[in-house]
Amino acid sequence: MLKINEKMLKDEAMNSSGLCNEQLYLNPQVLPNGDVVFKFYAPGAKSVQVAGMGDDTGFADRVYDLVDDGNGNWSGTVSGLRPGFHYFSFLVDGRRTMNPECPVYRGWARACNAVDIPDPDLDFYRMKDVPHGEVRNAWYYSELTGRYRHIHVYTPPSYDTDLDKKYPVLYLQHGSGESETSWLWQGKINNIMDNLLAEGKAVEMLVVMDCGYAYPKGSGPSAEGPGKDNIFTEVLVKDLVPFINKKYRVLTDREHRAIAGLSMGAGHAGRIGFGNLDLFAWIGLFSGGLFRGDASESPHLQILSKPDEANKLIKLLFIGAGADERGYERIKQSHLTLTEKGIRHEWYEVPGTHEWQVWRKHAHKFLPLLFK
Amino acid sequence: MLKINEKMLKDEAMNSSGLCNEQLYLNPQVLPNGDVVFKFYAPGAKSVQVAGMGDDTGFADRVYDLVDDGNGNWSGTVSGLRPGFHYFSFLVDGRRTMNPECPVYRGWARACNAVDIPDPDLDFYRMKDVPHGEVRNAWYYSELTGRYRHIHVYTPPSYDTDLDKKYPVLYLQHGSGESETSWLWQGKINNIMDNLLAEGKAVEMLVVMDCGYAYPKGSGPSAEGPGKDNIFTEVLVKDLVPFINKKYRVLTDREHRAIAGLSMGAGHAGRIGFGNLDLFAWIGLFSGGLFRGDASESPHLQILSKPDEANKLIKLLFIGAGADERGYERIKQSHLTLTEKGIRHEWYEVPGTHEWQVWRKHAHKFLPLLFK
Repeated sequence: MLKINEKMLKDEAMNSSGLCNEQLYLNPQVLPNGDVVFKFYAPGAKSVQVAGMGDDTGFADRVYDLVDDGNGNWSGTVSGLRPGFHYFSFLVDGRRTMNPECPVYRGWARACNAVDIPDPDLDFYRMKDVPHGEVRNAWYYSELTGRYRHIHVYTPPSYDTDLDKKYPVLYLQHGSGESETSWLWQGKINNIMDNLLAEGKAVEMLVVMDCGYAYPKGSGPSAEGPGKDNIFTEVLVKDLVPFINKKYRVLTDREHRAIAGLSMGAGHAGRIGFGNLDLFAWIGLFSGGLFRGDASESPHLQILSKPDEANKLIKLLFIGAGADERGYERIKQSHLTLTEKGIRHEWYEVPGTHEWQVWRKHAHKFLPLLFK
Repeated sequence: MLKINEKMLKDEAMNSSGLCNEQLYLNPQVLPNGDVVFKFYAPGAKSVQVAGMGDDTGFADRVYDLVDDGNGNWSGTVSGLRPGFHYFSFLVDGRRTMNPECPVYRGWARACNAVDIPDPDLDFYRMKDVPHGEVRNAWYYSELTGRYRHIHVYTPPSYDTDLDKKYPVLYLQHGSGESETSWLWQGKINNIMDNLLAEGKAVEMLVVMDCGYAYPKGSGPSAEGPGKDNIFTEVLVKDLVPFINKKYRVLTDREHRAIAGLSMGAGHAGRIGFGNLDLFAWIGLFSGGLFRGDASESPHLQILSKPDEANKLIKLLFIGAGADERGYERIKQSHLTLTEKGIRHEWYEVPGTHEWQVWRKHAHKFLPLLFK
């Protein structure tokens, strides 16, 4: 049984989601023992359930029945969920829906409810009484898409005062169906960076977060899914990096530029990083396969035959996995293959599945290794 | 019939909401003639409807039936909606719900769908090819609430380059049930400011946006509603203003500090502005009553008996209304009373109701008058 203190619970209720951060969310309600009370107002419904989503996080693929109080106020308590971030849906008469009164995130290629259960033993991703950086909303014009794109840029606490300083840059990507906002609201990357900096464990850097979907001029996502015709890897290299170089006080050589991502974002980081070693010297792949597809699609494959060159060019190749995730064996195989080929890399597995609590831990391990 | 060009429609689909800005929203779909196609997937439902919300914006209080294609794909076209921002709900078998595949905003004290129909004749709030400011996510500690609070801060394009310059500040508040994110995503305040600056029509300034709800230490919103025990006006004066003064390069005298807001935010702006004339010299009230309640709650009432002092201290008192909003007569009465008392002020009414298209126009008129 967890023992979560009251402050953690209230902080969590106030710091969720990207739509509203100051109105305490009363639903779902996390209890000090880690149980979660879910509520849904649905007068006249025959059944209301709450269902976890995703690779098993101790919640996913399970469905729990809520009970009507007779006035349409359905509620129920779910026990035994692990600390961390859990996406979920409600099912009303069997139809999947969301509750607009619960915190809302971008996930599963739509708006999605989630609950973030504090871990009483982990506070590296929580907001603490340390100097705070900012996360900027900025917009850049993409020649390739013919449109403005919205990005988040984390700037460290010193950025507005050390005016002569130039900073290295990490490009950090979200997973499938998520967005440029996910490392902020799901990942709490600002808290992770602020806390590492306060402890003197990481180098000050900018963290640039873009949306991993982009479509050529005159086009857009098709009914076949948002992955089709996605030209994001080109957009990052040709439009985003030049914008960041011009707009912010950053160091522009390859040894001061990193790229990382989770899941689909690990795929992006691999293709962009290995495909542009003139631009990137540091690569982080969180819960993503390193080797897949043919060589033209996977520039990582080419490096396998040139371990000496890889070891010379790549300052850090970080591969993270959740020990319980479905793709674990495939991800670990990348580590074993690299070891066999003599390619230097950092392998980091933590308990957990294909979930944000794992990626927060990956980021927390990865960031202190950068630019040193 | 409207004639909206394709670029406007695509820009709109890409620039909505605060959760995801780069995945083109295909639902609702605005057609070039201004018609809007709404879709909802609800297999097995007996009826699906779309319903407008709020003071009549040409959509509110009306309910339109969608039609099932036999596979649970319900859809329908609504004609005759005015350009501008419209909140809406879906009704599935009569129960109000939202569609997670449509853009999501904070409104009505929850997550809420909305559609933003471009106005072919108005582009002052659209993103254009001009220098762009940023909207920062920042966090400050509030002694009064005992918690960190999330704010947005618009910084003009020059902020990162004119490093010796200090800026005036506008504090800008949202309406009831909305949040600190609303002036950004619903209001497009960054575009309005960027465009005015590019035309040389406004003074460069910071725009600070906080959430108009705050609760004392150990407390939170009650079941009686988020307005109860709300100490936001104190929090802004005692915690937020000192934070902004310290954190940003701002001018700190009263003649370089303004406060404005819409609806509930006009109430906040009135109480905070008139109640702290040592801090604020510029006040903007958009679609909010000036005189209401007793004098202790309404410091504006006291100024009525001292027109000379008011005219000396207040550099600008701006009162905006939508000519068709329900509260129009009451708001206009403020204008008439002020005129009668000889208190200098700016009265600005535009066509429209209690809706964002009106408040965008108010902001567009108000901002160029500030700090001159």
